[in-house]
Amino acid sequence: MRSITVELGERSYPIHIGSGLLRDIGRHCVKAGFPLRSPLLIVSDSEVAPRYLPMVEAALRGEGYVVVSHVIPAGEASKSLAVYEEVITTAIQAGLDRSSAVLALGGGVVGDLAGFVAASYMRGIGFIQIPTTILAHDSSVGGKVAVNHPLAKNMIGAFYQPSLVLYDLDTLSTLPPRQISSGLAEVVKHGLILDRDFAYWCLEHASELLSLNTEALGYALERGCAIKARVVSNDEREHGQRAFLNLGHTIGHAIEAVGGYGVFLHGEAIAIGMAGSALLAAKLGRERVIYEDTIAMLSALSLPVRLPAEYSVDELMEAMMHDKKFKEGKMTFIVPDSIGAVSIVNDVQQSAVREVLAQLKKEGSPW
Amino acid sequence: MRSITVELGERSYPIHIGSGLLRDIGRHCVKAGFPLRSPLLIVSDSEVAPRYLPMVEAALRGEGYVVVSHVIPAGEASKSLAVYEEVITTAIQAGLDRSSAVLALGGGVVGDLAGFVAASYMRGIGFIQIPTTILAHDSSVGGKVAVNHPLAKNMIGAFYQPSLVLYDLDTLSTLPPRQISSGLAEVVKHGLILDRDFAYWCLEHASELLSLNTEALGYALERGCAIKARVVSNDEREHGQRAFLNLGHTIGHAIEAVGGYGVFLHGEAIAIGMAGSALLAAKLGRERVIYEDTIAMLSALSLPVRLPAEYSVDELMEAMMHDKKFKEGKMTFIVPDSIGAVSIVNDVQQSAVREVLAQLKKEGSPW
Ligand SMILES: NC(=O)c1ccc[n+]([C@@H]2O[C@H](COP(=O)([O-])OP(=O)(O)OC[C@H]3O[C@@H](n4cnc5c(N)ncnc54)[C@H](O)[C@@H]3O)[C@@H](O)[C@H]2O)c1
Ligand SMILES: NC(=O)c1ccc[n+]([C@@H]2O[C@H](COP(=O)([O-])OP(=O)(O)OC[C@H]3O[C@@H](n4cnc5c(N)ncnc54)[C@H](O)[C@@H]3O)[C@@H](O)[C@H]2O)c1
Ligand SMILES: [Zn+2]
Ligand SMILES: [Zn+2]
Repeated sequence: MRSITVELGERSYPIHIGSGLLRDIGRHCVKAGFPLRSPLLIVSDSEVAPRYLPMVEAALRGEGYVVVSHVIPAGEASKSLAVYEEVITTAIQAGLDRSSAVLALGGGVVGDLAGFVAASYMRGIGFIQIPTTILAHDSSVGGKVAVNHPLAKNMIGAFYQPSLVLYDLDTLSTLPPRQISSGLAEVVKHGLILDRDFAYWCLEHASELLSLNTEALGYALERGCAIKARVVSNDEREHGQRAFLNLGHTIGHAIEAVGGYGVFLHGEAIAIGMAGSALLAAKLGRERVIYEDTIAMLSALSLPVRLPAEYSVDELMEAMMHDKKFKEGKMTFIVPDSIGAVSIVNDVQQSAVREVLAQLKKEGSPW
Repeated sequence: MRSITVELGERSYPIHIGSGLLRDIGRHCVKAGFPLRSPLLIVSDSEVAPRYLPMVEAALRGEGYVVVSHVIPAGEASKSLAVYEEVITTAIQAGLDRSSAVLALGGGVVGDLAGFVAASYMRGIGFIQIPTTILAHDSSVGGKVAVNHPLAKNMIGAFYQPSLVLYDLDTLSTLPPRQISSGLAEVVKHGLILDRDFAYWCLEHASELLSLNTEALGYALERGCAIKARVVSNDEREHGQRAFLNLGHTIGHAIEAVGGYGVFLHGEAIAIGMAGSALLAAKLGRERVIYEDTIAMLSALSLPVRLPAEYSVDELMEAMMHDKKFKEGKMTFIVPDSIGAVSIVNDVQQSAVREVLAQLKKEGSPW
């Protein structure tokens, strides 16, 4: 088992990563100080629950906990206030009290929803993450929890840290291949922004990662979590360095918005976005090798690096302007300075972004 | 103008109390650092808005802010997730961003609801309280914000501190008399738990307080806020001393639950509860003068100190057991040791509480 600590003063918490951890969840809850007399609520989704919920329930009951489970439909649509209210109702009916905890067994959707329940039920109770996707390594660090509003994603939420993250690599074996690659996009992103060696390590070990080799995956998730943890510890409430984590996300979000959510998975969209950021870097005078190596890394992880022809540059630009309320023709982007280092550039010309988007639609070398 | 600071490290904030402050709200928002380019959202209710909203809007617009207002129906029923979602929708449509603020113009209902909107919109934006009831002096200190769930009051919320509280005493002139007395119950409670001199000061100045004498009321609200602030600073997340603030509330909540919300106002219910706590104190061997002086103070403020005959002791006991999940026949109460000092007593016999409730239904001296 690998363990790291997210350092946030009195809100610090451990992340345990390894094989066969689910069966230890009861012991971990005791160790984290959750009393047996307070009921626990597991939130999971309709894909994950049939596979892993019985094991988690058994482990908790075996330790002596009273456990109630709430299973939501799989998918982003469950990150809504309506589903949130249903989970709260379950929590009240189960008699959760101030010493109880909500356990999120699933991917980022379950984590974000259950986290907001934990943050707001009785003004905040315990929260434990049991991520079952690779992408959720990202949501398990940083304390962002949220639900969506029909008018905008992640609009309603809190900064709320879990007490514990238990990452059982065995659960990842049932992930569909596209979900694996999508999650790895955020993993390699953490290398691209702050850890050159790790980014190249991902390139070298891409096939082991795609085949979920336990050793490689454990290392990659540990590094990914650790890099994000470092950024978040320095900037818990997103005032400065935390913006680095948005590498590829401005274009990525626009792709998701224009294409419709779910056409590209989140990691796929930001992979194209990271390719775009690397192109922009070249346009701003950074070395071309940044782009070439970024493309190599993303491609090795079976991620897309091109925009399909049907995406309109105008629509993408509009989505970006709407998303970030950029003013007066200048846009802000996270731009790589080299592999493993990025800057916040505030005065990117709209015309440069248009050129990048147009270029992303073309096959072959940009130069 | 009187000003106090609620000391909470980097979350410290000022409370300004005085006459004619509404027209300064724009200036205060600028001073608190809210930029003119970010829209402000005022939440108010159908009783308060017609009287005071235009003045607040004008003061903010006069300073150069873009302002949008959302008026909810007056009353506790508006503290719901459904109304919460409507307010969030207004915020999104008005384009509130991370630098925006939500202003609560009203009593505790508006404050609690608007506060939870501020706490959760984009994971937390600015929050300014403009209390218009006396009771809201209590909710303006402590950072508790919440909405109700059909199954339980204040079940969904957060600890979220305002940036600023602006208490314009002039707004209190339109409060119905019962609301005035109800609010004063929490004021004198703050004296009863921690400030003997202030408690007797309230007794001496009761008629000035009831007639809303600016000087007396300003002093009383300042002391009330300051005492609560001291307790909260020592115990922001309610682990210890903050329990003192519940003096009278165990019985008070039971009265509200059994009688139906709104039969007694909150302050009226806890006045009866404080009378009960003083009786319990006598039963536990404290001096009778505690009870006699408590009754004198509450009566002077036109507050009830007796339970109407139709309240059933069994039903009240059941409501208390349900509320606090007391176990094995022992109950926890905040019990006065003298006027201005209280203890947490964990081993109160149920039978003693029953006797207190029965006594509260009888006219005349208990001894
Ligand atoms: N809070 C944060 O900091 C943060 C960071 C990144 C993403 N997110 C959020 O996370 C969400 C995306 O996360 P995600 O990609 O994990 O989505 P997800 O939770 O929807 O999971 C993706 C799909 O995989 C299924 N699944 C999950 N685990 C599985 C397993 N072990 N075996 C088989 N199927 C499994 C799910 O049922 C779902 O259908 C988005 O809502 C995003 O906003 C939050
Ligand atoms: N957050 C906390 O720490 C805390 C503390 C105490 C109470 N509360 C909450 O506060 C609420 C009770 O507060 P409240 O008593 O202020 O209730 P309220 O907000 O409902 O106000 C009482 C009534 O007076 C009206 N009103 C308000 N200001 C007025 C004015 N200036 N002139 C004329 N009418 C006016 C309102 O429209 C309402 O009808 C409850 O929901 C309670 O849970 C919260
Ligand atoms: Zn992302
Ligand atoms: Zn109260």
